Amino acid sequence: MANDELGVVHTRITHPDPGAVQALSRFGVATVHEAMGRVGLMRPALRPAWRGARLCGPAVTVLLQPGDNWMFHVAVEQLHDGDILVAACTTECEDGFFGELLATSVQARGCGGLVIDGGVRDVDDLERIGFPVFSRAINAKGCVKATLGSVNVDVICGGALVRPGDVVLADTDGVVVVPRERVADVAASAAAREDNEEVKRAQFRAGVLGLDLYAMRDTLARAGLRYLD
Amino acid sequence: MANDELGVVHTRITHPDPGAVQALSRFGVATVHEAMGRVGLMRPALRPAWRGARLCGPAVTVLLQPGDNWMFHVAVEQLHDGDILVAACTTECEDGFFGELLATSVQARGCGGLVIDGGVRDVDDLERIGFPVFSRAINAKGCVKATLGSVNVDVICGGALVRPGDVVLADTDGVVVVPRERVADVAASAAAREDNEEVKRAQFRAGVLGLDLYAMRDTLARAGLRYLD
Amino acid sequence: MANDELGVVHTRITHPDPGAVQALSRFGVATVHEAMGRVGLMRPALRPAWRGARLCGPAVTVLLQPGDNWMFHVAVEQLHDGDILVAACTTECEDGFFGELLATSVQARGCGGLVIDGGVRDVDDLERIGFPVFSRAINAKGCVKATLGSVNVDVICGGALVRPGDVVLADTDGVVVVPRERVADVAASAAAREDNEEVKRAQFRAGVLGLDLYAMRDTLARAGLRYLD
Amino acid sequence: MANDELGVVHTRITHPDPGAVQALSRFGVATVHEAMGRVGLMRPALRPAWRGARLCGPAVTVLLQPGDNWMFHVAVEQLHDGDILVAACTTECEDGFFGELLATSVQARGCGGLVIDGGVRDVDDLERIGFPVFSRAINAKGCVKATLGSVNVDVICGGALVRPGDVVLADTDGVVVVPRERVADVAASAAAREDNEEVKRAQFRAGVLGLDLYAMRDTLARAGLRYLD
Amino acid sequence: MANDELGVVHTRITHPDPGAVQALSRFGVATVHEAMGRVGLMRPALRPAWRGARLCGPAVTVLLQPGDNWMFHVAVEQLHDGDILVAACTTECEDGFFGELLATSVQARGCGGLVIDGGVRDVDDLERIGFPVFSRAINAKGCVKATLGSVNVDVICGGALVRPGDVVLADTDGVVVVPRERVADVAASAAAREDNEEVKRAQFRAGVLGLDLYAMRDTLARAGLRYLD
Amino acid sequence: MANDELGVVHTRITHPDPGAVQALSRFGVATVHEAMGRVGLMRPALRPAWRGARLCGPAVTVLLQPGDNWMFHVAVEQLHDGDILVAACTTECEDGFFGELLATSVQARGCGGLVIDGGVRDVDDLERIGFPVFSRAINAKGCVKATLGSVNVDVICGGALVRPGDVVLADTDGVVVVPRERVADVAASAAAREDNEEVKRAQFRAGVLGLDLYAMRDTLARAGLRYLD
Repeated sequence: MANDELGVVHTRITHPDPGAVQALSRFGVATVHEAMGRVGLMRPALRPAWRGARLCGPAVTVLLQPGDNWMFHVAVEQLHDGDILVAACTTECEDGFFGELLATSVQARGCGGLVIDGGVRDVDDLERIGFPVFSRAINAKGCVKATLGSVNVDVICGGALVRPGDVVLADTDGVVVVPRERVADVAASAAAREDNEEVKRAQFRAGVLGLDLYAMRDTLARAGLRYLD
Repeated sequence: MANDELGVVHTRITHPDPGAVQALSRFGVATVHEAMGRVGLMRPALRPAWRGARLCGPAVTVLLQPGDNWMFHVAVEQLHDGDILVAACTTECEDGFFGELLATSVQARGCGGLVIDGGVRDVDDLERIGFPVFSRAINAKGCVKATLGSVNVDVICGGALVRPGDVVLADTDGVVVVPRERVADVAASAAAREDNEEVKRAQFRAGVLGLDLYAMRDTLARAGLRYLD
Repeated sequence: MANDELGVVHTRITHPDPGAVQALSRFGVATVHEAMGRVGLMRPALRPAWRGARLCGPAVTVLLQPGDNWMFHVAVEQLHDGDILVAACTTECEDGFFGELLATSVQARGCGGLVIDGGVRDVDDLERIGFPVFSRAINAKGCVKATLGSVNVDVICGGALVRPGDVVLADTDGVVVVPRERVADVAASAAAREDNEEVKRAQFRAGVLGLDLYAMRDTLARAGLRYLD
Repeated sequence: MANDELGVVHTRITHPDPGAVQALSRFGVATVHEAMGRVGLMRPALRPAWRGARLCGPAVTVLLQPGDNWMFHVAVEQLHDGDILVAACTTECEDGFFGELLATSVQARGCGGLVIDGGVRDVDDLERIGFPVFSRAINAKGCVKATLGSVNVDVICGGALVRPGDVVLADTDGVVVVPRERVADVAASAAAREDNEEVKRAQFRAGVLGLDLYAMRDTLARAGLRYLD
Repeated sequence: MANDELGVVHTRITHPDPGAVQALSRFGVATVHEAMGRVGLMRPALRPAWRGARLCGPAVTVLLQPGDNWMFHVAVEQLHDGDILVAACTTECEDGFFGELLATSVQARGCGGLVIDGGVRDVDDLERIGFPVFSRAINAKGCVKATLGSVNVDVICGGALVRPGDVVLADTDGVVVVPRERVADVAASAAAREDNEEVKRAQFRAGVLGLDLYAMRDTLARAGLRYLD
Repeated sequence: MANDELGVVHTRITHPDPGAVQALSRFGVATVHEAMGRVGLMRPALRPAWRGARLCGPAVTVLLQPGDNWMFHVAVEQLHDGDILVAACTTECEDGFFGELLATSVQARGCGGLVIDGGVRDVDDLERIGFPVFSRAINAKGCVKATLGSVNVDVICGGALVRPGDVVLADTDGVVVVPRERVADVAASAAAREDNEEVKRAQFRAGVLGLDLYAMRDTLARAGLRYLD
């Protein structure tokens, strides 16, 4: 169950194959979403905290309490090189759970970025040190350290289920989650899709219409589309 | 994975013990949320479509496409007596996916209500026939039947993970999800909690302060609370 | 053009046939929306100001300036028996543009209700005197009378175009706009639709599945739906 | 300064004259807002938690931390007969800070209701015991008791400044705050305004137009209003 | 009527004079809005998808169904050099209706940009190829091609009515719609307004107060403004 | 009282010590918020109108009426070198109250920027002339000059109380308000805090965990945190 267990840290998580993560990382979010069968996106309210941010890696999950960022400190110890922090909250809260000091700490542990269903602060510094963050809000509001959440439990972040070790990929178009078992397959599908798109792109550049390229005219007519002069 | 599988109907789901569901059904949403350890709530944007609506039962889940209610018709066949429909969408959409005709159909199959992360219509009729609905919106916007979703897959509804057979309980305070394995335990905890609350209630009625009943004065002082005259 | 002309009052508007309005008035908003070909709805943010409110009639339109309800007083003189005030604003504003005194005034002129893309106040009084209102907000904020808007120009209200004389119909499900030329036709289609629904309703009550009633099984199979045991 | 002091309880507040509060309590929110010169309203997002709720009395203020309702227990001891709890939070948070047990406790101390820029729960019970509440949300989400806020400091609630002892008045139209020094004056102005409105109401019922009653025709013409046939 | 006709493509639209469009294109959105008499704006929720985007041209309108971008392919064939796509939806939907492949296709047909009351994706690519887009959201969510909408019908986009051939102008300040009949007049008024503003700007730079430049002191005094020392 | 007095201009305000303002201006918003004891922030909906905007200075406050920017012209005369305009509205309104002409005028008077709980326009020009603005919206919608507000009264802006002479500091993380009496103290605390953070930063860079640096392990264990393998 997601968001369901408080006061727990799972110290072992299943990591996906690093080569597969590497393969996946060269695609965009929209391509991967399509390659998965048009699923897996977080809600579009999660946006890059700074222009050009981009990340890809296995999730170390954090379940936060409102106004409280204690669990981030617990999570740091659980990070492996290339991991991405994925943080959800037990309720809706846009406080500034994460800033430059925490980023410095997790960068030192090899962390590749943060996706958070909440707020962050020090965003100019985050950009300066090149730490990619995707968040629901930018908010200077500080946090206490008083109430237990969890680390490495299943969480729901941006409306998507994230299990520890699932891969999150984020760019200007948003954030997509790839189940850890499917990373290699999805990377392969994304590659196939991109090859296919390059063919179409050339046709479109040459002025071919989608109506003809996709042979839509008959289907549209059967659906009843009427052209009026 | 949730919201992850399109075009699939699972025809067998694990139902929780009916006695446990029955035991759970007599508690309120806030009590059950507390009894679970303060987890399990859907987002408060899901509200009763009519005043006084209330439901409790195992979930038959429906994953909808935007503006498309085809999968509700597929779901009807999968309902058992007392089941609750829990409907999510592959994206944010508040169209009127469900109305009185569908309610009539599912009521004939013994369905005990609907929780939907979207819109519903015919709400006066829903109230008249006593079909409880909790939704994000009331919206007359009609739907097409053109694109496959799924039935009885894990879904994320109102920000909460719901697996087929998990119990959803909803009243004026909102909607809570109880994992199918925990129904009896949660019902027992809820009962214990309610007994305990009745004791406190009597004290509060008699004018006892929470400061004294919960012995908070020392903790507050140690935390630094200052009384100024 | 809509919302495009300030400082103008059109004193003659084209009224639809009263018999057609009468015929239309007995249907619900969802039915009429479907009968029009699934168009014509205002955004679902417009809700009844009091429980049970319902209205149907030709629109006298009002284009307001933010925080200013001057044009309502100009509009009163343009009302005919049974007309509905439909008020939009030149910008987004949820101030309380309308209350019980104005309601008393327009009721005395035979006005059948108000639809407003803004706020209203005195809602207990509006309910007491039986004046139906559909609004985006309930807000006690008062208005000035300082800047010209217009009366009986085309307006965009709740995301829908309303021309003077178009019929607005509103109930618990929302608000729908029927072009003045189509009122009789839409009423006829709504009646046909309702007859047809009564037949389906009886079948659903008898336990017939939509899958069979609508012969969906083949289409679903062709679309690739898989049943898993 | 408002929302500016944490960890403090002011045990003495300035109460307004009880007779003035009593005089004010018979007016509606819209009337009092107008009588004050069209100021003093909270944002319209604060709504009655149950239909028909209404309250009027001097404020005992509570400054909460997100997800934490500890300070309510501190506030109970500071209540005098007829006082109204006015609760703000140091950030945006719609958790269920208050429910039936707390209501029972504060009712026993003579408290006349709650206005909260946050969420509440047990709303059916609140209605049953007749405890009026105005809130931004209904939310079953429970709270911890871990971090200090304050009691009887100036707070900003619903976008309005409330000092301890200021009078809050709330009904279906919203919530208005009357500075403690102005209660008698505002009650007198409200009475005058209501008398004046009764005169207008009679005229409107008789069919007199606001255009004539308020002598607006010349002003409108000078502002450039054009009547088109 | 707007948003009212489904399943229709109008193949002839009335284009405004190209010289007038050219003349208009050199002004900003705020200036044109003022020059029209302070009307014509879309809601401010429509924002540039990439920093610096700007467009001006006659509208080819698209009416979409939720989660469905089929009609874009139909619309491509109707584009003339310099036309702007203006897309609305039959309901509120922020899916990613449009991305880089479609942009490549419409650019090949001379299209000058897109205004959409919905979501778009591939925004880094859109910026790279210099295709200006104004949208309500950035969202990677993909679309189906299953249900008919329309092309070149009147639509309501961002709360504004847009008829085929009306000119849309968009920059960092938002989007404004100029009726096709008024383009030359509005361009002339905008030019006059800009000349006039240049005079004022020089005065303001020299330290002249608006109070004096606009001779406001007497009006303010008559309105009752009091200066307190 | 805030937002409580209409039609008034206070011509004398209490300015904080310029040296203290200067000292404060070198810190970020998050640091100052923490240095104040974690209070003083405006709501995160107020964002820089252009990337990189930053301001710090004593507030000259403006209370606006919806859709009306008359009071800005009154406020210009009250500005001293380095002052910041802080504008609130008597209701929620996101019209474009302020643009490049007004910015030119106030820059000529030495004004250091604008914080507004509303909309602004001409944002490309504001960036070009280097006038920093923090606002709730970017909106081209123009304003009238018809109804009195006030200048240099207490206002509530972005949910925070601002008195004339209080210092507002804004950067990419948001806006914070420092009471005029506390500016020097807060600057000193901010300096101490920053020194302290530099020490921690070095430790984090060296790979020290927050768990150890802050000695959290015991507290977490006592709170019941369980590590599961």
